[in-house]
Amino acid sequence: MIDYNALFKITYGLFIVSSGNKEEGNGFISNTVFQVTAEPPRFATCCNKNNFTAGFIEKHGCFAVSVMRQDATSEIIGRFGYKSGRDIKKLDGMNVKYGKSGVPIVLNECITYLECKVVQTFDVGTHWLFIGELIEAEILDETSEPITYTYYRETKKGFAPKNAPTYIDKSKLDVPKAPTNSGKYKCLACGHIYDENKEGVKFADLPNDWKCPDCGTDKEDFIEA
Amino acid sequence: MIDYNALFKITYGLFIVSSGNKEEGNGFISNTVFQVTAEPPRFATCCNKNNFTAGFIEKHGCFAVSVMRQDATSEIIGRFGYKSGRDIKKLDGMNVKYGKSGVPIVLNECITYLECKVVQTFDVGTHWLFIGELIEAEILDETSEPITYTYYRETKKGFAPKNAPTYIDKSKLDVPKAPTNSGKYKCLACGHIYDENKEGVKFADLPNDWKCPDCGTDKEDFIEA
Repeated sequence: MIDYNALFKITYGLFIVSSGNKEEGNGFISNTVFQVTAEPPRFATCCNKNNFTAGFIEKHGCFAVSVMRQDATSEIIGRFGYKSGRDIKKLDGMNVKYGKSGVPIVLNECITYLECKVVQTFDVGTHWLFIGELIEAEILDETSEPITYTYYRETKKGFAPKNAPTYIDKSKLDVPKAPTNSGKYKCLACGHIYDENKEGVKFADLPNDWKCPDCGTDKEDFIEA
Repeated sequence: MIDYNALFKITYGLFIVSSGNKEEGNGFISNTVFQVTAEPPRFATCCNKNNFTAGFIEKHGCFAVSVMRQDATSEIIGRFGYKSGRDIKKLDGMNVKYGKSGVPIVLNECITYLECKVVQTFDVGTHWLFIGELIEAEILDETSEPITYTYYRETKKGFAPKNAPTYIDKSKLDVPKAPTNSGKYKCLACGHIYDENKEGVKFADLPNDWKCPDCGTDKEDFIEA
Protein backbone atom coordinates (compact mmCIF):
# COMPACT_ATOMS: atom_id res chain seq x y z
CA MET A 1 0.00 0.00 0.00
CA ILE A 2 1.27 3.44 -0.86
CA ASP A 3 0.04 6.22 1.42
CA TYR A 4 0.71 9.30 -0.69
CA ASN A 5 0.56 11.52 2.38
CA ALA A 6 3.80 9.83 3.48
CA LEU A 7 5.57 11.56 0.58
CA PHE A 8 5.01 14.93 2.24
CA LYS A 9 7.35 13.86 5.07
CA ILE A 10 10.37 14.14 2.79
CA THR A 11 11.98 17.52 3.42
CA TYR A 12 12.87 19.78 0.49
CA GLY A 13 13.88 23.38 -0.06
CA LEU A 14 12.40 25.68 -2.69
CA PHE A 15 14.60 27.15 -5.38
CA ILE A 16 14.55 29.07 -8.64
CA VAL A 17 16.58 27.02 -11.11
CA SER A 18 17.55 29.10 -14.13
CA SER A 19 19.53 28.72 -17.33
CA GLY A 20 20.37 30.53 -20.55
CA ASN A 21 22.59 33.51 -21.30
CA LYS A 22 22.20 37.27 -21.80
CA GLU A 23 20.12 36.78 -24.96
CA GLU A 24 17.71 34.08 -23.81
CA GLY A 25 16.83 32.28 -20.65
CA ASN A 26 14.24 31.07 -18.22
CA GLY A 27 13.78 29.79 -14.70
CA PHE A 28 11.40 27.54 -12.81
CA ILE A 29 10.62 26.68 -9.22
CA SER A 30 12.19 23.43 -8.13
CA ASN A 31 12.16 21.63 -4.82
CA THR A 32 14.65 18.98 -5.90
CA VAL A 33 18.15 20.39 -5.66
CA PHE A 34 20.70 18.45 -3.63
CA GLN A 35 24.40 17.81 -3.38
CA VAL A 36 25.56 14.45 -4.76
CA THR A 37 29.32 14.56 -4.13
CA ALA A 38 31.56 16.58 -1.87
CA GLU A 39 34.81 16.17 -3.81
CA PRO A 40 34.33 17.82 -6.21
CA PRO A 41 31.17 19.61 -5.02
CA ARG A 42 28.43 18.56 -7.44
CA PHE A 43 24.71 19.20 -7.34
CA ALA A 44 21.74 17.49 -8.94
CA THR A 45 18.52 19.07 -10.06
CA CYS A 46 15.52 17.27 -11.47
CA CYS A 47 13.65 18.89 -14.34
CA ASN A 48 10.59 17.81 -16.31
CA LYS A 49 11.49 17.16 -19.96
CA ASN A 50 8.62 19.45 -21.03
CA ASN A 51 9.92 22.23 -18.86
CA PHE A 52 10.99 25.22 -20.97
CA THR A 53 14.13 25.69 -18.83
CA ALA A 54 15.25 22.11 -19.57
CA GLY A 55 16.06 23.10 -23.14
CA PHE A 56 18.28 25.97 -21.97
CA ILE A 57 20.15 23.73 -19.53
CA GLU A 58 20.83 21.23 -22.33
CA LYS A 59 21.85 23.96 -24.79
CA HIS A 60 23.99 26.11 -22.50
CA GLY A 61 25.34 23.36 -20.21
CA CYS A 62 24.89 25.33 -17.03
CA PHE A 63 22.29 26.16 -14.42
CA ALA A 64 21.95 28.40 -11.40
CA VAL A 65 20.11 27.68 -8.19
CA SER A 66 18.71 30.61 -6.24
CA VAL A 67 17.67 29.66 -2.72
CA MET A 68 14.40 31.46 -1.92
CA ARG A 69 13.93 33.11 1.43
CA GLN A 70 11.19 32.00 3.82
CA ASP A 71 8.96 35.02 3.21
CA ALA A 72 9.15 34.74 -0.59
CA THR A 73 6.00 36.27 -2.08
CA SER A 74 3.21 34.47 -3.90
CA GLU A 75 3.99 36.68 -6.90
CA ILE A 76 7.48 35.26 -7.40
CA ILE A 77 6.37 31.68 -6.67
CA GLY A 78 3.46 32.11 -9.10
CA ARG A 79 5.67 33.70 -11.77
CA PHE A 80 8.39 31.03 -11.72
CA GLY A 81 6.36 28.04 -10.55
CA TYR A 82 2.99 28.24 -12.23
CA LYS A 83 3.70 29.94 -15.54
CA SER A 84 5.64 28.77 -18.57
CA GLY A 85 8.50 30.63 -20.20
CA ARG A 86 6.76 29.74 -23.48
CA ASP A 87 4.06 32.29 -22.55
CA ILE A 88 5.91 35.02 -20.67
CA LYS A 89 9.50 36.23 -20.40
CA LYS A 90 9.94 35.35 -16.74
CA LEU A 91 13.30 37.06 -16.33
CA ASP A 92 12.13 40.44 -17.66
CA GLY A 93 12.10 43.05 -14.93
CA MET A 94 13.79 40.76 -12.43
CA ASN A 95 17.04 41.49 -10.64
CA VAL A 96 19.31 39.17 -12.61
CA LYS A 97 23.06 38.67 -12.31
CA TYR A 98 25.02 36.82 -14.98
CA GLY A 99 27.37 34.19 -13.62
CA LYS A 100 30.84 33.02 -14.67
CA SER A 101 29.26 30.74 -17.28
CA GLY A 102 26.94 33.52 -18.46
CA VAL A 103 23.95 31.91 -16.78
CA PRO A 104 21.21 34.30 -15.54
CA ILE A 105 20.84 34.12 -11.76
CA VAL A 106 17.68 35.45 -10.10
CA LEU A 107 18.48 37.52 -7.02
CA ASN A 108 14.97 38.69 -6.01
CA GLU A 109 13.82 37.30 -2.65
CA CYS A 110 16.74 34.86 -2.59
CA ILE A 111 19.37 34.40 0.11
CA THR A 112 22.03 32.38 -1.68
CA TYR A 113 22.88 31.22 -5.14
CA LEU A 114 24.91 28.38 -6.61
CA GLU A 115 26.17 28.29 -10.18
CA CYS A 116 26.85 24.91 -11.76
CA LYS A 117 28.35 23.59 -14.99
CA VAL A 118 26.55 20.47 -16.24
CA VAL A 119 28.80 17.39 -16.22
CA GLN A 120 26.24 14.58 -16.56
CA THR A 121 22.61 14.27 -17.68
CA PHE A 122 20.52 11.25 -16.72
CA ASP A 123 17.16 10.21 -18.13
CA VAL A 124 14.86 9.18 -15.28
CA GLY A 125 11.63 8.91 -17.28
CA THR A 126 9.44 12.02 -17.35
CA HIS A 127 12.35 14.09 -15.97
CA TRP A 128 16.03 14.80 -16.61
CA LEU A 129 18.44 14.65 -13.72
CA PHE A 130 21.15 17.22 -14.39
CA ILE A 131 24.40 16.90 -12.44
CA GLY A 132 26.35 20.13 -12.23
CA GLU A 133 29.76 20.96 -10.82
CA LEU A 134 29.74 23.96 -8.52
CA ILE A 135 31.73 26.85 -9.97
CA GLU A 136 30.40 29.72 -7.84
CA ALA A 137 28.46 30.06 -4.58
CA GLU A 138 27.55 33.20 -2.73
CA ILE A 139 25.44 34.16 0.27
CA LEU A 140 23.27 37.21 -0.50
CA ASP A 141 21.46 37.52 2.82
CA GLU A 142 23.10 36.25 6.01
CA THR A 143 20.06 36.57 8.27
CA SER A 144 16.98 35.20 6.48
CA GLU A 145 16.00 31.55 6.60
CA PRO A 146 15.53 29.52 3.42
CA ILE A 147 11.96 28.54 2.62
CA THR A 148 11.19 24.83 2.83
CA TYR A 149 8.62 22.98 0.75
CA THR A 150 6.80 22.06 3.99
CA TYR A 151 6.58 25.74 4.96
CA TYR A 152 5.28 26.59 1.49
CA ARG A 153 2.63 23.88 1.70
CA GLU A 154 1.57 24.62 5.26
CA THR A 155 1.77 28.40 5.33
CA LYS A 156 0.93 29.33 1.77
CA LYS A 157 -1.27 26.24 1.25
CA GLY A 158 0.52 25.70 -2.04
CA PHE A 159 0.82 22.48 -4.02
CA ALA A 160 3.55 21.36 -6.41
CA PRO A 161 2.63 22.16 -10.03
CA LYS A 162 2.01 19.38 -12.57
CA ASN A 163 5.59 19.30 -13.91
CA ALA A 164 7.18 18.83 -10.48
CA PRO A 165 8.76 15.49 -9.50
CA THR A 166 6.69 15.71 -6.31
CA TYR A 167 3.35 16.46 -8.01
CA ILE A 168 0.60 14.36 -6.49
CA ASP A 169 -2.74 13.89 -8.16
CA LYS A 170 -5.19 15.24 -5.56
CA SER A 171 -7.42 12.17 -6.03
CA LYS A 172 -4.63 10.03 -4.52
CA LEU A 173 -4.63 12.02 -1.32
CA ASP A 174 -6.97 11.23 1.46
CA VAL A 175 -8.12 14.86 1.72
CA PRO A 176 -11.53 15.92 3.02
CA LYS A 177 -13.97 16.38 0.17
CA ALA A 178 -14.68 19.99 -0.74
CA PRO A 179 -18.06 21.15 0.51
CA THR A 180 -20.52 21.25 -2.38
CA ASN A 181 -21.53 24.68 -3.60
CA SER A 182 -19.34 26.57 -1.12
CA GLY A 183 -18.78 29.04 -3.94
CA LYS A 184 -15.11 29.25 -2.92
CA TYR A 185 -12.18 28.32 -5.14
CA LYS A 186 -8.56 28.13 -4.02
CA CYS A 187 -5.41 28.93 -6.01
CA LEU A 188 -3.08 25.93 -5.81
CA ALA A 189 -0.02 28.17 -6.13
CA CYS A 190 -0.64 30.79 -3.45
CA GLY A 191 -3.80 29.80 -1.62
CA HIS A 192 -5.81 32.87 -2.76
CA ILE A 193 -9.54 32.27 -2.31
CA TYR A 194 -11.99 33.38 -5.01
CA ASP A 195 -15.34 33.78 -3.26
CA GLU A 196 -18.29 33.87 -5.66
CA ASN A 197 -20.53 35.41 -3.01
CA LYS A 198 -18.21 38.38 -2.55
CA GLU A 199 -17.25 38.77 -6.21
CA GLY A 200 -20.77 38.42 -7.58
CA VAL A 201 -19.55 36.33 -10.52
CA LYS A 202 -19.66 32.53 -10.67
CA PHE A 203 -16.16 31.03 -10.90
CA ALA A 204 -17.28 28.98 -13.92
CA ASP A 205 -18.34 32.18 -15.67
CA LEU A 206 -14.91 33.80 -15.40
CA PRO A 207 -13.13 33.94 -18.78
CA ASN A 208 -10.63 31.15 -19.48
CA ASP A 209 -7.74 33.60 -19.51
CA TRP A 210 -8.65 34.88 -16.04
CA LYS A 211 -5.69 34.76 -13.62
CA CYS A 212 -5.25 34.69 -9.86
CA PRO A 213 -5.17 38.35 -8.77
CA ASP A 214 -2.47 37.60 -6.17
CA CYS A 215 0.02 35.54 -8.14
CA GLY A 216 -1.20 35.35 -11.74
CA THR A 217 -1.82 31.60 -11.78
CA ASP A 218 -4.22 30.28 -14.44
CA LYS A 219 -7.89 29.61 -13.69
CA GLU A 220 -7.38 25.86 -14.25
CA ASP A 221 -5.05 25.71 -11.24
CA PHE A 222 -7.87 26.56 -8.83
CA ILE A 223 -9.82 23.90 -6.94
CA GLU A 224 -13.11 24.07 -5.05
CA ALA A 225 -12.27 24.97 -1.45
CA MET B 1 34.51 32.19 -5.60
CA ILE B 2 32.83 29.39 -3.73
CA ASP B 3 31.54 30.31 -0.28
CA TYR B 4 31.10 26.89 1.29
CA ASN B 5 28.75 28.33 3.92
CA ALA B 6 26.29 28.90 1.07
CA LEU B 7 25.92 25.12 0.78
CA PHE B 8 24.25 24.99 4.18
CA LYS B 9 21.29 26.97 2.76
CA ILE B 10 20.15 23.94 0.77
CA THR B 11 17.38 22.25 2.76
CA TYR B 12 17.52 18.49 3.36
CA GLY B 13 15.80 15.95 5.56
CA LEU B 14 17.56 13.24 7.56
CA PHE B 15 16.83 9.60 6.87
CA ILE B 16 17.98 6.08 7.64
CA VAL B 17 18.50 4.38 4.28
CA SER B 18 18.68 0.61 4.68
CA SER B 19 19.05 -2.47 2.51
CA GLY B 20 19.53 -6.22 2.70
CA ASN B 21 17.21 -9.02 3.70
CA LYS B 22 16.46 -11.13 6.81
CA GLU B 23 19.95 -12.69 6.75
CA GLU B 24 22.08 -9.61 6.19
CA GLY B 25 21.67 -5.90 5.99
CA ASN B 26 22.73 -2.46 7.05
CA GLY B 27 21.60 1.14 7.14
CA PHE B 28 23.18 4.59 7.11
CA ILE B 29 22.11 8.15 7.73
CA SER B 30 21.47 10.05 4.53
CA ASN B 31 20.32 13.59 3.93
CA THR B 32 19.93 13.13 0.18
CA VAL B 33 16.65 11.41 -0.54
CA PHE B 34 14.28 13.08 -2.99
CA GLN B 35 11.55 12.30 -5.45
CA VAL B 36 12.60 12.41 -9.12
CA THR B 37 9.36 11.55 -10.92
CA ALA B 38 5.70 11.59 -9.97
CA GLU B 39 4.43 9.10 -12.57
CA PRO B 40 5.54 6.54 -11.55
CA PRO B 41 6.68 7.74 -8.11
CA ARG B 42 10.45 7.26 -8.05
CA PHE B 43 13.00 8.35 -5.49
CA ALA B 44 16.72 8.92 -5.64
CA THR B 45 19.24 8.39 -2.89
CA CYS B 46 22.91 9.20 -3.03
CA CYS B 47 25.32 6.77 -1.43
CA ASN B 48 29.11 6.79 -1.11
CA LYS B 49 30.65 3.87 -3.01
CA ASN B 50 32.61 2.91 0.12
CA ASN B 51 29.47 2.84 2.17
CA PHE B 52 28.76 -0.68 3.47
CA THR B 53 25.03 -0.30 2.66
CA ALA B 54 25.83 0.46 -1.02
CA GLY B 55 26.82 -3.18 -1.54
CA PHE B 56 23.50 -4.41 -0.16
CA ILE B 57 21.51 -2.02 -2.37
CA GLU B 58 23.41 -3.30 -5.43
CA LYS B 59 23.02 -6.96 -4.41
CA HIS B 60 19.39 -6.91 -3.28
CA GLY B 61 18.08 -4.22 -5.66
CA CYS B 62 16.00 -2.44 -3.05
CA PHE B 63 16.26 0.15 -0.34
CA ALA B 64 14.08 1.58 2.39
CA VAL B 65 13.99 5.17 3.60
CA SER B 66 12.97 5.79 7.20
CA VAL B 67 12.16 9.44 7.86
CA MET B 68 13.59 10.35 11.28
CA ARG B 69 11.53 12.39 13.67
CA GLN B 70 12.69 15.81 14.88
CA ASP B 71 13.68 14.63 18.36
CA ALA B 72 15.72 11.68 17.10
CA THR B 73 18.38 10.84 19.68
CA SER B 74 22.13 11.23 19.31
CA GLU B 75 22.39 7.49 19.92
CA ILE B 76 20.50 6.56 16.75
CA ILE B 77 22.21 9.26 14.67
CA GLY B 78 25.60 8.13 16.00
CA ARG B 79 24.81 4.44 15.41
CA PHE B 80 23.64 4.83 11.80
CA GLY B 81 25.61 7.92 10.80
CA TYR B 82 29.02 7.65 12.38
CA LYS B 83 29.68 3.93 12.54
CA SER B 84 30.27 1.39 9.83
CA GLY B 85 28.34 -1.82 9.34
CA ARG B 86 31.76 -3.40 8.78
CA ASP B 87 32.41 -2.94 12.53
CA ILE B 88 29.02 -3.41 14.16
CA LYS B 89 25.72 -5.03 13.24
CA LYS B 90 23.70 -1.82 13.19
CA LEU B 91 20.31 -3.52 12.83
CA ASP B 92 20.76 -5.81 15.86
CA GLY B 93 18.37 -4.88 18.63
CA MET B 94 16.52 -2.36 16.49
CA ASN B 95 12.81 -2.42 15.75
CA VAL B 96 12.98 -3.67 12.16
CA LYS B 97 10.14 -4.50 9.80
CA TYR B 98 10.75 -6.44 6.58
CA GLY B 99 9.14 -4.90 3.52
CA LYS B 100 7.48 -6.41 0.44
CA SER B 101 10.90 -6.81 -1.16
CA GLY B 102 12.33 -8.30 2.03
CA VAL B 103 14.28 -5.12 2.79
CA PRO B 104 14.84 -4.32 6.48
CA ILE B 105 13.12 -1.06 7.48
CA VAL B 106 14.16 0.71 10.68
CA LEU B 107 11.13 1.91 12.66
CA ASN B 108 12.84 3.37 15.76
CA GLU B 109 12.38 7.14 16.10
CA CYS B 110 10.98 7.34 12.56
CA ILE B 111 7.66 8.81 11.45
CA THR B 112 7.32 7.42 7.92
CA TYR B 113 8.97 4.91 5.67
CA LEU B 114 9.22 4.41 1.93
CA GLU B 115 10.24 1.14 0.30
CA CYS B 116 11.78 1.28 -3.17
CA LYS B 117 12.87 -1.20 -5.84
CA VAL B 118 16.01 -0.06 -7.67
CA VAL B 119 15.36 0.66 -11.35
CA GLN B 120 18.48 2.66 -12.27
CA THR B 121 21.96 3.18 -10.84
CA PHE B 122 24.08 6.16 -11.88
CA ASP B 123 27.77 6.69 -11.23
CA VAL B 124 28.32 10.28 -10.10
CA GLY B 125 31.97 9.94 -9.04
CA THR B 126 32.58 9.15 -5.37
CA HIS B 127 28.88 8.24 -4.97
CA TRP B 128 26.19 6.10 -6.55
CA LEU B 129 22.84 7.63 -7.28
CA PHE B 130 20.24 4.89 -6.87
CA ILE B 131 16.81 5.48 -8.43
CA GLY B 132 14.08 3.39 -6.84
CA GLU B 133 10.43 2.92 -7.68
CA LEU B 134 8.14 3.32 -4.71
CA ILE B 135 6.40 0.05 -3.83
CA GLU B 136 5.24 0.84 -0.30
CA ALA B 137 4.84 3.97 1.84
CA GLU B 138 3.42 4.25 5.31
CA ILE B 139 3.04 6.92 7.98
CA LEU B 140 4.05 5.59 11.40
CA ASP B 141 3.49 8.73 13.46
CA GLU B 142 0.95 11.33 12.34
CA THR B 143 1.91 14.04 14.80
CA SER B 144 5.72 14.36 14.95
CA GLU B 145 7.66 16.57 12.57
CA PRO B 146 10.47 15.18 10.43
CA ILE B 147 13.98 16.26 11.40
CA THR B 148 15.74 18.51 8.89
CA TYR B 149 19.48 18.64 8.30
CA THR B 150 19.42 22.32 9.36
CA TYR B 151 17.76 21.39 12.67
CA TYR B 152 20.35 18.66 13.21
CA ARG B 153 23.19 21.06 12.52
CA GLU B 154 21.82 23.93 14.59
CA THR B 155 20.30 22.08 17.51
CA LYS B 156 22.54 19.08 17.83
CA LYS B 157 25.58 20.91 16.42
CA GLY B 158 26.22 17.92 14.20
CA PHE B 159 28.22 17.80 10.98
CA ALA B 160 27.85 15.47 8.01
CA PRO B 161 30.23 12.50 8.26
CA LYS B 162 33.06 12.03 5.74
CA ASN B 163 31.09 9.73 3.40
CA ALA B 164 28.17 12.17 3.01
CA PRO B 165 27.60 14.00 -0.28
CA THR B 166 27.35 17.17 1.80
CA TYR B 167 30.56 16.63 3.79
CA ILE B 168 32.58 19.84 3.98
CA ASP B 169 36.20 19.90 5.00
CA LYS B 170 36.17 22.19 8.06
CA SER B 171 39.20 24.07 6.71
CA LYS B 172 37.00 25.35 3.85
CA LEU B 173 34.56 26.96 6.23
CA ASP B 174 35.13 30.39 7.56
CA VAL B 175 34.65 29.24 11.16
CA PRO B 176 36.19 30.96 14.17
CA LYS B 177 39.45 29.31 15.11
CA ALA B 178 39.24 27.08 18.16
CA PRO B 179 40.75 28.70 21.24
CA THR B 180 44.15 27.17 21.95
CA ASN B 181 44.36 24.95 25.01
CA SER B 182 40.67 25.25 25.89
CA GLY B 183 40.87 21.62 26.92
CA LYS B 184 37.45 21.06 25.33
CA TYR B 185 36.74 18.67 22.46
CA LYS B 186 33.43 18.40 20.61
CA CYS B 187 31.82 15.32 19.09
CA LEU B 188 30.98 16.10 15.45
CA ALA B 189 28.03 13.70 15.51
CA CYS B 190 26.14 14.84 18.58
CA GLY B 191 27.91 17.90 19.95
CA HIS B 192 28.96 16.21 23.23
CA ILE B 193 31.79 18.17 24.90
CA TYR B 194 34.72 16.33 26.46
CA ASP B 195 36.21 18.71 29.02
CA GLU B 196 39.74 17.76 30.12
CA ASN B 197 39.47 19.95 33.21
CA LYS B 198 36.41 18.10 34.46
CA GLU B 199 37.49 14.63 33.37
CA GLY B 200 41.05 14.91 34.67
CA VAL B 201 42.44 13.12 31.59
CA LYS B 202 43.95 14.84 28.57
CA PHE B 203 41.94 14.13 25.41
CA ALA B 204 45.14 13.07 23.65
CA ASP B 205 45.78 10.51 26.39
CA LEU B 206 42.43 8.75 25.90
CA PRO B 207 42.83 5.34 24.23
CA ASN B 208 42.30 5.24 20.44
CA ASP B 209 39.24 3.03 20.85
CA TRP B 210 37.60 5.55 23.19
CA LYS B 211 34.08 6.51 22.07
CA CYS B 212 31.74 9.43 22.68
CA PRO B 213 29.80 8.53 25.86
CA ASP B 214 26.60 10.03 24.41
CA CYS B 215 26.49 8.56 20.91
CA GLY B 216 29.42 6.17 20.56
CA THR B 217 31.25 8.15 17.87
CA ASP B 218 34.97 7.47 17.48
CA LYS B 219 37.62 9.67 19.11
CA GLU B 220 38.86 10.82 15.69
CA ASP B 221 35.50 12.51 15.03
CA PHE B 222 36.06 15.03 17.83
CA ILE B 223 37.47 18.51 17.20
CA GLU B 224 38.89 21.10 19.57
CA ALA B 225 36.00 23.30 20.69
